[in-house]
Formats: sequence, structure tokens, C-alpha cells
Amino acid sequence: MTDAAPRRGRGRPARTESAAGPATRDRILDAAREEFSARGYDKTSVRGIAKAAGVDSALVHHYFGTKEQVFEAAVEGAMAPALAAPEAIVDGPLDDVGERLTRFFLGVWENPTSRTPLLAIVRSAVNNDTAAAVFRRLVAAQLMRRIAARLDAPDAELRTELAAAQLVGVAMLRYLIRIEPLASADVERVVAGVAPVVQGHLTNP
Amino acid sequence: MTDAAPRRGRGRPARTESAAGPATRDRILDAAREEFSARGYDKTSVRGIAKAAGVDSALVHHYFGTKEQVFEAAVEGAMAPALAAPEAIVDGPLDDVGERLTRFFLGVWENPTSRTPLLAIVRSAVNNDTAAAVFRRLVAAQLMRRIAARLDAPDAELRTELAAAQLVGVAMLRYLIRIEPLASADVERVVAGVAPVVQGHLTNP
Repeated sequence: MTDAAPRRGRGRPARTESAAGPATRDRILDAAREEFSARGYDKTSVRGIAKAAGVDSALVHHYFGTKEQVFEAAVEGAMAPALAAPEAIVDGPLDDVGERLTRFFLGVWENPTSRTPLLAIVRSAVNNDTAAAVFRRLVAAQLMRRIAARLDAPDAELRTELAAAQLVGVAMLRYLIRIEPLASADVERVVAGVAPVVQGHLTNP
Repeated sequence: MTDAAPRRGRGRPARTESAAGPATRDRILDAAREEFSARGYDKTSVRGIAKAAGVDSALVHHYFGTKEQVFEAAVEGAMAPALAAPEAIVDGPLDDVGERLTRFFLGVWENPTSRTPLLAIVRSAVNNDTAAAVFRRLVAAQLMRRIAARLDAPDAELRTELAAAQLVGVAMLRYLIRIEPLASADVERVVAGVAPVVQGHLTNP
């Protein structure tokens, strides 16, 4: 069980910490993202992440804490463009927020670079309660709450979640289950079908 | 590797086949459903199913074939009420097919007995391409195509899939990820938000 780091002392960062700093932290995060993507949450271990990053497990714990916290940091990093960028998307005119959100969401999924970590996150969240909790915290707190705050409705959060459900369902059937003809449909056709629904959930009287 | 069935001959059904027949077949299916539910597709083996059913692995192969085929039979059994029942739901008036489908879908998910195998199926389909293929074949062929056939539109299948996406997304966020307030919202509130969307996808000009 300890072949990857045979000489490390318990809880004490090993010699590899001399390589510490932002670059090491990023390397651990990259390795974590790849491990979680390839294996899913359940089968990923802190030891495996450390090995892939070429550092001692203790260093992973030192920077991030538990496996759940490593996962959260990895998800947060992978989703950073999706969670942070859309100031203009969330804060623009409410009249066409549905189309802006739909285009943004599909854009993230259409891009292979951002799709891979997203697939891993969704797979992990579906299969593991801890990963689901991370997903709830990040997506609910950072993105959906900002949208709900824009709406002038007593059930703004529920409305946002029903809109999100339409988008999440499209991601499931188009990118994960890959059901046809949806999987191969032109993205503009999908936008045309989905954007009015997202808009309606958010702003219909 | 053979401790569960130490004396069986390769490919030759063991003595336990004397207990064969519909009851044995059902017992294998029940065991398969429980194994797939508890472990997911990847971690379930034909040997494990045979052991749980108290039969020889060869008998599982004899009745169902490969692991994929056992999975398909188990899913088909678990989803039989969802796939076969809704004659009245699919074939009733098109004017309120959205509400009928939404109530039926949420009814299946609200019922703990049908929810458990559904959770297992969705988890497996999200994580495993073979399971996703089974999901596509069953759900696409048996349910969605019947709905699409009712619609008088050139893009009937895509419309059906976008409607399904709204429902699948609600299932994801309400029953799997359990995001609040959607997870605890009154089911009538969810129907009110979702049924018009499903209807619109199917029948809007």
C-alpha cells in the first residue's frame, strides 16, 4: 500500500516538499483532475493523485486537506470558466438571459477541452454523495444563486433550478447518453428549442 | 475465481439447472437487478449474480447470454411499468400529453420502489458505454419513438428528446443531486413548471 511513497513519515511532508510552491500546487490539481476524470470519485485516492503528480501524499493533504477537498478544488478549477466568466451572461438584459445562458452552457459542453472535466464531474456527482454535495455547493452557490438573485419572483430559486434541469437534461442525453438525433443535431437547432424554455422558466409570469 | 461454483464444468450448466424454469429465471433477474443497483454495471459480474441467485454462472449465461444481455433484461424488467404501461398516456389527447407524461414520469420517480432501480440504471448509463447503449435501445425504441410517432412534425424525434431532456434533468437535480429547493418542492409545483414545457416541445408550432 505504500510502495508509491515508501519512506514518508506519517502526516509529515516528505523531502519532495522542497519542490513546493504554486507550480507544485497546480501540478497536484492537474493530476487530481486527470485522476478524477479517468477513474471517478470513488476509485480515486489521494495516494494515486500524489503519485501522478510526483509528490508525496502528505503534500496533497497539506495543500488541500481531505480527498473531498481535493475534489472540490479540482472541480472548482475545471469549472472556473463556467462559474466565474459569465458576468455579462448573468447580468445582461433579462429579456434574453435564456438564450445567453443556453449558448454559454452548450458552448462549454461543445468544447472538448471543457467537456472532459465536466463529464467527470457529472459522473462523479451521479455516483457519489460526497461528490454530489460538492456539485451542489459549487453550482448552486456560485452560479444558480446569482441568476436567481436577478429574478423578481418569490420562487426565483426553484425557477432557476427548473431552467437548469432543462440544460442538464440536454447535456445528459446529448453528451453522456448520446441519444440520436439529439446527439448529432446542429447546436443552433438545440439553442432554438431550449433557449425559450430557459427564458420561460426564469421570466414567465 | 471459482469458489462460488467450485465443481462446475466449463460452459456446461451444473446440477443446479435441475431447479430451472420460470422461477429460476425470475430469481436470476431479481438478483441481477439487486447486484446492478448496489454495485453499478462495471462492478457487477455474472458470477456475482449467479452467486446471489444461488445458481451456477452457466445457468445465467444459458438464460440471458452476456453480462450486457443480463443487464438489458434486468433493466427491461425494472422499467417494464414505465415502458409498457402508458398506452393511455401516449395515446390520449395530444392537447395535454405534456401533463400526462410529466405526471407519469414524476410518479415513477416519487415511488421509492420504482425509484431504486431507476437510480441504478441512470448511474450505470452515465458511467458505462455499454449500459448507455442499453438505455438508448430501450428508452429510445420503446417509449420515445412511440411518442414521436404521435407528433405530426418533421423533427418529431428531436422534439421528443428535448422534452425528455427537461424530465431527465428534473430527475437528475431532484432525485440524484438533490439540489434545494427543487428536491423538496411539492410535486404539484414541479408539474406546474414542467408540464407546459414538455407540452410545448412536443406540440408548439
